[in-house]
Amino acid sequence: MIRVKLIGAGGYGGIGMVELLMRHPEASLSALVDVQGVGGKLSDMWPYLRGHCDQTILAPDSAEAKNIEADVVVCATPDGVGQTAAPAEISAGRKVIDYSGDYRFNSAELYREYAGRIGRDPVHKAPELLKESAYGLTELHRNEVKKARVVGNPGCFAMSCICGLWPAVQYGLIELQGICCDCKTGVSGAGKKPAPGLHFPERYDNSNAYRLTGHQHVMEIERELSSLAGKPVSVTFTPQIVPMVRGILSTLYGRLPAGVTHKRILEAYGDTFDKEPFLQVRNYDEPVGTSDVRGSNRLIVTIATDERTGIFRVISHVDNLVKGQAGSALQNLNVMFGLPETMGLDLPPQHP
Amino acid sequence: MIRVKLIGAGGYGGIGMVELLMRHPEASLSALVDVQGVGGKLSDMWPYLRGHCDQTILAPDSAEAKNIEADVVVCATPDGVGQTAAPAEISAGRKVIDYSGDYRFNSAELYREYAGRIGRDPVHKAPELLKESAYGLTELHRNEVKKARVVGNPGCFAMSCICGLWPAVQYGLIELQGICCDCKTGVSGAGKKPAPGLHFPERYDNSNAYRLTGHQHVMEIERELSSLAGKPVSVTFTPQIVPMVRGILSTLYGRLPAGVTHKRILEAYGDTFDKEPFLQVRNYDEPVGTSDVRGSNRLIVTIATDERTGIFRVISHVDNLVKGQAGSALQNLNVMFGLPETMGLDLPPQHP
Amino acid sequence: MIRVKLIGAGGYGGIGMVELLMRHPEASLSALVDVQGVGGKLSDMWPYLRGHCDQTILAPDSAEAKNIEADVVVCATPDGVGQTAAPAEISAGRKVIDYSGDYRFNSAELYREYAGRIGRDPVHKAPELLKESAYGLTELHRNEVKKARVVGNPGCFAMSCICGLWPAVQYGLIELQGICCDCKTGVSGAGKKPAPGLHFPERYDNSNAYRLTGHQHVMEIERELSSLAGKPVSVTFTPQIVPMVRGILSTLYGRLPAGVTHKRILEAYGDTFDKEPFLQVRNYDEPVGTSDVRGSNRLIVTIATDERTGIFRVISHVDNLVKGQAGSALQNLNVMFGLPETMGLDLPPQHP
Amino acid sequence: MIRVKLIGAGGYGGIGMVELLMRHPEASLSALVDVQGVGGKLSDMWPYLRGHCDQTILAPDSAEAKNIEADVVVCATPDGVGQTAAPAEISAGRKVIDYSGDYRFNSAELYREYAGRIGRDPVHKAPELLKESAYGLTELHRNEVKKARVVGNPGCFAMSCICGLWPAVQYGLIELQGICCDCKTGVSGAGKKPAPGLHFPERYDNSNAYRLTGHQHVMEIERELSSLAGKPVSVTFTPQIVPMVRGILSTLYGRLPAGVTHKRILEAYGDTFDKEPFLQVRNYDEPVGTSDVRGSNRLIVTIATDERTGIFRVISHVDNLVKGQAGSALQNLNVMFGLPETMGLDLPPQHP
Repeated sequence: MIRVKLIGAGGYGGIGMVELLMRHPEASLSALVDVQGVGGKLSDMWPYLRGHCDQTILAPDSAEAKNIEADVVVCATPDGVGQTAAPAEISAGRKVIDYSGDYRFNSAELYREYAGRIGRDPVHKAPELLKESAYGLTELHRNEVKKARVVGNPGCFAMSCICGLWPAVQYGLIELQGICCDCKTGVSGAGKKPAPGLHFPERYDNSNAYRLTGHQHVMEIERELSSLAGKPVSVTFTPQIVPMVRGILSTLYGRLPAGVTHKRILEAYGDTFDKEPFLQVRNYDEPVGTSDVRGSNRLIVTIATDERTGIFRVISHVDNLVKGQAGSALQNLNVMFGLPETMGLDLPPQHP
Repeated sequence: MIRVKLIGAGGYGGIGMVELLMRHPEASLSALVDVQGVGGKLSDMWPYLRGHCDQTILAPDSAEAKNIEADVVVCATPDGVGQTAAPAEISAGRKVIDYSGDYRFNSAELYREYAGRIGRDPVHKAPELLKESAYGLTELHRNEVKKARVVGNPGCFAMSCICGLWPAVQYGLIELQGICCDCKTGVSGAGKKPAPGLHFPERYDNSNAYRLTGHQHVMEIERELSSLAGKPVSVTFTPQIVPMVRGILSTLYGRLPAGVTHKRILEAYGDTFDKEPFLQVRNYDEPVGTSDVRGSNRLIVTIATDERTGIFRVISHVDNLVKGQAGSALQNLNVMFGLPETMGLDLPPQHP
Repeated sequence: MIRVKLIGAGGYGGIGMVELLMRHPEASLSALVDVQGVGGKLSDMWPYLRGHCDQTILAPDSAEAKNIEADVVVCATPDGVGQTAAPAEISAGRKVIDYSGDYRFNSAELYREYAGRIGRDPVHKAPELLKESAYGLTELHRNEVKKARVVGNPGCFAMSCICGLWPAVQYGLIELQGICCDCKTGVSGAGKKPAPGLHFPERYDNSNAYRLTGHQHVMEIERELSSLAGKPVSVTFTPQIVPMVRGILSTLYGRLPAGVTHKRILEAYGDTFDKEPFLQVRNYDEPVGTSDVRGSNRLIVTIATDERTGIFRVISHVDNLVKGQAGSALQNLNVMFGLPETMGLDLPPQHP
Repeated sequence: MIRVKLIGAGGYGGIGMVELLMRHPEASLSALVDVQGVGGKLSDMWPYLRGHCDQTILAPDSAEAKNIEADVVVCATPDGVGQTAAPAEISAGRKVIDYSGDYRFNSAELYREYAGRIGRDPVHKAPELLKESAYGLTELHRNEVKKARVVGNPGCFAMSCICGLWPAVQYGLIELQGICCDCKTGVSGAGKKPAPGLHFPERYDNSNAYRLTGHQHVMEIERELSSLAGKPVSVTFTPQIVPMVRGILSTLYGRLPAGVTHKRILEAYGDTFDKEPFLQVRNYDEPVGTSDVRGSNRLIVTIATDERTGIFRVISHVDNLVKGQAGSALQNLNVMFGLPETMGLDLPPQHP
């Protein structure tokens, strides 16, 4: 039984991991850590978990949290927490999976650039771990993840864009410059903290773009796509929020290279995705919406090339809280511990 | 392994059962039957089930559907279907669990009254089965359900009201005449069929009462409560629809008999509910909402007596599609086949 | 032209008044006052008002706000503001309409009780004004409002309950003890301030009761109903929140006195409401929902007596931000200044 | 007083026009025509209009509808109705404004192509009127509209895209080939007819693209933009539906020609839009969402050029039922009859 210490247990990313671990036959929670609700039960904070998960929340610096028996630490925490916490956890022989941008980059220089874009301290707290960290988009980095002590989970928007464009950039089915990622997220992507723009009356019939110069998401997208292409890729990214709770709908545009057909694109995606348990491809005339991945670890893309205008077009559907966050982290955990990759991730969600 | 034949597989009640059976270690689907989508896969109708449940939908009258090996038939169907289908299933040695009003009453006379209230043929098609059918509110009829060949699952509104009032009427904590059940349901309670009042733009910012003389729900509520009280109970029932999808919030009012205190009521509910795995009780100052039971087989009541005015008040929270429908049916199935009552029903739901 | 000074301009109650005044031919805004956004335009805070209302927000204590020319001051403010502000405004010759509980009671003693229930300072700041203040439920207090210098606007829940029960208590069509008010409000009733329970992901599929001992609403309901009945009336009040934005659906229960029939109730409501421009009555079989009053100053009640069980039942529909707040305040303003009561309140809302 | 005959009165586009005419000082309804609800009042179909608009609905072929005194006929009807109805109306001396694609094209050949794309009879019923019809995007065709007897109102998606790209294509600020229009609409855009994908439970937490080869919208977009550019423009159009009711959020992408800067784009939009009463431009760091145009005849664009990647980006916000439909039709009516263009369209909407 893999013992999991969960830091940031009380956020959406934390309870998402709790829910998944309850379904997992080979992993279990050994400790819940958070800065809020310390000393109380997680089910006091989240009554729907009463009877399911009544463990006490420990303070991050408590002796109990530090000395807990655990094989892996999941940092379901915002930027900055994992880089502070990981070195001691690694020293204690635990592996680390971090949800934030703290371990998505392999050098202090790249991190510095990223941190600057989100207005954080540019000096990474554990630069020595950056070199060995793996980027936790499992499908692309399965072998690194398998061996890694530290895994940096992808951002949810990045997940939708990178998987959505993967075969296209790898097989030269899209022009590499000027790709446009039009991404709409549900509100849970902003976390559980109330804010004016997430207040029910202001959000229920409202859609908007935001952080229009927010390039921090772009860095990991461009890095991964460039690596797949073997050449630099440039991306324009438009984050938008729509009045749903779970789900990202990313519509990805680029130019079609001469001679690339819809049929060729469909085949390339099929060849790549059919080997992956959580990736699915659909043709333009098959109906699919974000509710088809809601609550699931799947990512579904629709191929909708516009040959008339020479525009490559793919639509990517993902649940930001599952494949975009906790599900993807558990998928990495499975790989890191030699378990079947789909373990605990194969139950159907509830609809509607 | 209990083999389940599911009739009405494509409705919300059907897919709810499919989802639950995927999580159940001792029961599995042997056949999917519906009048819609025959010959296609269930996952063609519901793409979120692709890879989870790709079985073919059989026509009700097909030889394949009739001869399938099955231990139990779940009729996730509207009024009228189960009473036609059950006799042959029983003859073939299968047990039957029906979601509708077809087997909620134990005599042709009572059914006649019920059928009249919903405008249906008053002559029951299988009157001989009525005598032996059990009312599938497991907590109240565990022993009958255990032995029954036919179980009539309660209505979702009735579930919320009967459980909400159970200890009160049993222990004389409420006046038995003039009880008012103010019940608000999410939209999924109306099923998957589109209708003007369920059209997104007409529903998103709208709440209303409906069927204000619809006494058919009242019959099973009054029957069960009268049985618990040992005296006649009368109930006024106000069904209302609010713009959520899953959940029923029932606020139940009555008069306090002389000398009955809040403390006494709280204790009585605690005594009764603490023995039940799916029932929980909370005091008036503990926050609880329908989202705390969303996706779960639980029913939570809040005790909020108003001693100043002499009003008994309990608030009942339930997910109409789980404890109000498929979950309750699976709970009965577990009991009917000697399995632990919570089997397959003990996973935490996903939030938010 | 009536000149209006609006205090609390930036809340939902403030912008609701701004919207209405833009449609009013005989009243106009002379000053916008708030503690937030001072020095900026109201349309900076609320971009949808750009070009409609670009006036600068003044600080409450600024000389400009104090010396502005105004005939009436609308305090669209929470409890405590109006009682501090009103004396100086009255001295300056301005009338005052207050949205909060500050002027709903006519004596310091009654206010003390009310303030205690909401946890505020029990000593009113302007007790001398309480004696002359009018309770601004226009339909019931038209004559007092006409002459008043200070009007205390009713609470939105109270509005729905008092109007809903008015003819019943006045004409003896309901037992006066043990009336139950089951009230569901949209989220805008809680104001614009973000809070965990109003965060979109926590609210979108959730309904709950709250403040179950919150008797402060009850005081004005019981006072008004007792006055109409000429005898004491007691009320149990259950506030609930459902995932809509605008609207209150109040279902009101009581016992039918011997001999009172549905027909009699319907007639009594018709006799009373048909004289009122903003009140409408419907029979139980006419469909009506809160969306039928959304954006409008109307209040519609449905009569749905249950003669079988002897239960009186009325359902009251109102937009909490219009007839429940700003619209009602403007209706009072019209009456106070001798304008037609419906002026500026007679445009149809937008649907859906 | 301009007398308006409204055909298709009972749809969202019809009641939107009714609402606007109630606010208009110089135009009024002379007849309501529809195929549904004939002989009843409009307020029987839409109870929120009771007391506001209780006129009787006439059958299209009735003598009363034909002989009514009217100066203008608004066809708030789907494709195919206006082309049948208009000739007789024109002969009777009435002007015609049509919401559908029936009069958006100036030749039978262009209409044939359009009709083919939406699967309709390719032969126009009134080809002689096509030559003289004006395309009712008022800001671009004010002079034609002023003189026209027949105006074809733009589609709501087309409105958002054409206005969003207008100064860019006119002043050479975007490459004319490969423009991508990523358009998200609220559900009211699909009309009032219930359908599985618009059923509340299927839509409340779901976003999806649809009709991915639906080029019919593209025709008018490309025609107008090419006309503005003086050169052919090609557009890829992705219609998407998100769980809101009112509003379109269109994010428009293209390539920046060498030397075109963000500053230059912002100026060009300002120069063009500042002359227009209903068009507004915002810079990328000013927050704006569809709720800022909800209920209003405004269209707001945000300029968010990505100079790093050479991508032109504009975000267009519009209410599909107002500036995207009824509001725009009324704007045309004002122009056709020499009234101030903003008359009846200048009231602030209600928020939230």
